[in-house]
Amino acid sequence: MSQNVTAFDTIAAIATPPGEGAIAIIRVSGQDAIKTVNALFRGRDLTKVATNTINYGHIVDPDTHAVIDEVMVSVMRAPKTYTCEDVVEINTHGGILATNRVLHLVVGTGARMAEPGEFTKRAFLNGRIDLTQAEGVMDIIRAKTDRAMDVAEHQLAGGLETEIRATRQKVLDVLAQEEVNIDYPEYDTDQMTAQAMRQCAELVIKDIDRLLQTATEGQIMRDGLATAIVGRPNVGKSSLLNYLLHEDKAIVTDVAGTTRDVLEEYVNVRGVPLRLVDTAGIHDTDDKVEKIGVERSRAALAAADLVLLVLDASHPLTDEDRELLQATQKQHRIVLLNKQDLPTAFTAADLAEWVEPADVLATSVVTTAGMDALAERISTMFMGGIANRQAEVMVTNARQAGLLRQARQSLRDVLTGLDNEVPLDMVQMDLTDAWDRLGEITGDAAPDELITTLFSQFCLGK
Amino acid sequence: MSQNVTAFDTIAAIATPPGEGAIAIIRVSGQDAIKTVNALFRGRDLTKVATNTINYGHIVDPDTHAVIDEVMVSVMRAPKTYTCEDVVEINTHGGILATNRVLHLVVGTGARMAEPGEFTKRAFLNGRIDLTQAEGVMDIIRAKTDRAMDVAEHQLAGGLETEIRATRQKVLDVLAQEEVNIDYPEYDTDQMTAQAMRQCAELVIKDIDRLLQTATEGQIMRDGLATAIVGRPNVGKSSLLNYLLHEDKAIVTDVAGTTRDVLEEYVNVRGVPLRLVDTAGIHDTDDKVEKIGVERSRAALAAADLVLLVLDASHPLTDEDRELLQATQKQHRIVLLNKQDLPTAFTAADLAEWVEPADVLATSVVTTAGMDALAERISTMFMGGIANRQAEVMVTNARQAGLLRQARQSLRDVLTGLDNEVPLDMVQMDLTDAWDRLGEITGDAAPDELITTLFSQFCLGK
Repeated sequence: MSQNVTAFDTIAAIATPPGEGAIAIIRVSGQDAIKTVNALFRGRDLTKVATNTINYGHIVDPDTHAVIDEVMVSVMRAPKTYTCEDVVEINTHGGILATNRVLHLVVGTGARMAEPGEFTKRAFLNGRIDLTQAEGVMDIIRAKTDRAMDVAEHQLAGGLETEIRATRQKVLDVLAQEEVNIDYPEYDTDQMTAQAMRQCAELVIKDIDRLLQTATEGQIMRDGLATAIVGRPNVGKSSLLNYLLHEDKAIVTDVAGTTRDVLEEYVNVRGVPLRLVDTAGIHDTDDKVEKIGVERSRAALAAADLVLLVLDASHPLTDEDRELLQATQKQHRIVLLNKQDLPTAFTAADLAEWVEPADVLATSVVTTAGMDALAERISTMFMGGIANRQAEVMVTNARQAGLLRQARQSLRDVLTGLDNEVPLDMVQMDLTDAWDRLGEITGDAAPDELITTLFSQFCLGK
Repeated sequence: MSQNVTAFDTIAAIATPPGEGAIAIIRVSGQDAIKTVNALFRGRDLTKVATNTINYGHIVDPDTHAVIDEVMVSVMRAPKTYTCEDVVEINTHGGILATNRVLHLVVGTGARMAEPGEFTKRAFLNGRIDLTQAEGVMDIIRAKTDRAMDVAEHQLAGGLETEIRATRQKVLDVLAQEEVNIDYPEYDTDQMTAQAMRQCAELVIKDIDRLLQTATEGQIMRDGLATAIVGRPNVGKSSLLNYLLHEDKAIVTDVAGTTRDVLEEYVNVRGVPLRLVDTAGIHDTDDKVEKIGVERSRAALAAADLVLLVLDASHPLTDEDRELLQATQKQHRIVLLNKQDLPTAFTAADLAEWVEPADVLATSVVTTAGMDALAERISTMFMGGIANRQAEVMVTNARQAGLLRQARQSLRDVLTGLDNEVPLDMVQMDLTDAWDRLGEITGDAAPDELITTLFSQFCLGK
């Protein structure tokens, strides 16, 4: 192992998604990874094979000598591995039971179950990647669109890390300069320091502003836009959902109040990933099962980034329609006057008291009329042309954005302090604080709890 | 490549289960597997690396030069590979989108999408495994219990193949002997041949009988026992299902007719894998949604290997109860007199006209009374102690069992023919037919359509 690498205990986890597949992988990492798997392996002596080799053999229960599975075992020796430690990957024949049996043997032979994200955490603790790269790893796994994937790959390659480090260096230069100034009392160091601090703060705020401009779009790209489809029964909500999904996933019948469960699906609308939430309809009911659905729907509606409110334009507005128009007034929403294939009973003008005409679209899910306009409206409402911008360095999550905002606030405090001729050692504290916050983004200066929380959101085996 | 191995075209598929995971694998096999992946790989020249090595690098779009993912590429050269051909496995960062992008690049660079089971089919066509071993591979993936897994591993190791081949050899010996006899016309060859044929047929029928004795249990082990839980609303069906699953998967409320969907889950009862089917209740309804459920339930009931009929013992029998008792009379069933924690309104004696007392159990899912007796009854009803028998060679699927029965019938025809002094060349045809049927089990004599059908039931990437 290289000098900077800590020898951690040995961890193991299933690294492939759960379920039936052709291959499943049990990943093992740590100082005893090779020894542990070797004790269960009938084949070559894994402690003697070269690094980065694949070895055919069988996993055998050391107690009963029963063959558990025919496997291919990959041996990767430290430090050039995912975790910078010895890593062994056991490729089994797949299947839930077979894979779990192998994992349990590995854990019974000296390894412990890995926590979510623990392999990647070791890559970070051993200095191979920074926190933004670790986040990039997870963003790749969860990417919903090609664009999100490109941004995540760039983040994994260190794009955001490089920008943050460069920005942070500007702050460090001034902090270091100030130390130097203190050593040369013959100059008017206070004035020099104040000027350098002001320039630095102004410059770095610009850097941060530029990065934060990408944050909203970056987060939508990454997490998708929580989209609630609402409307009273039978206005075409399920048909709209199905149209967007391009397949029949929800049961559509002509009985009012049919869609009982809150479904969740992703769809890609002009590069905007929508996390679709279909609802049972927000209406009063005495049916207990329906009540559960209604409560879930209300919660989904309140949490939505975008509301698609569907009205049946072939019937006059009902009280329930008006209630929904009222209830969603403060949210980003698009109102669909659906069933335009039938004679219409009202138009956008009749809704003027609740909604801007630009946000009302005449549609017919049956004939697909208005569906292109809907996609167009969603794209401009949220992306404002981002899909063309092709910025590769983006702030893609709330953690990064929050820390950037905190750093910016500290820098603004620096400027306010200088304006008010606050003692420079007080101003310096704000500058140091900005330096710390930027360091938390990359993990150069991150508290343990932050690191623990961050990696616990990763998937198991990563 | 070794001499017997055909150089097939290059195929590719995702070999890990779909979904988010730490690692996904794109498997590529065929004469151009290494060349194909090398064209997309930024790292070492894969055409020059040693066999069974793991190579770090990036998959790059050859048109745009954009990096698609950071990967580890395993190169395994023919013939010592899963398919006996050159095999390359690309381990990506996981995630649905990333994995699909890599697959599409591989397919766009000369490979074609693999059909389900096509990798294993090549292992068979190239002579590495026989059909029973191929079936063992899938049985490992689908194993629901430890016992099923052990049987599948033994089948993969060639246990069933060896027995079938040995049995088949006995038939061949007689067929060959007859040819020899024809060359020595000075002996009473007809008598010798007839005697040898009779001995062989009797012996092989015994072999086959012994194997077929394991078939019912083998199939239950492999596929699980389709178990329908039926009863009128509110007798405790969902509670029973939840008890068996040891977790709350179905919504349980006190509204009659609540369980709207037919759920399917596996549970392991004393080594018997039950494929549980909960039903919406077989009762007349005008509700359209419920009607869908009722129709599905009727179908599930008709297809069930085991019916658990739940009655509410705290209320007098209803017409619906009587209808269900009548409707399930011809099926393996256990009748549960549930809600024994409440004062009871009837006993097993009152059901005497419909059901054997041995198949009636007094239960209370709430207090778990009778739940052990239920497990015991299921185990004896279907396994008759098989769990202790530990036979490792079992016939585990309908294909194997069907061919064994056909072979046995041909051998019985041999005996009948000999009894009736049918001309020996006619009897020989029946013996040859038995030989062919046994050959179909291992694939030594299997028609192309059979092989195509068999492998099409495999999962993608295997």
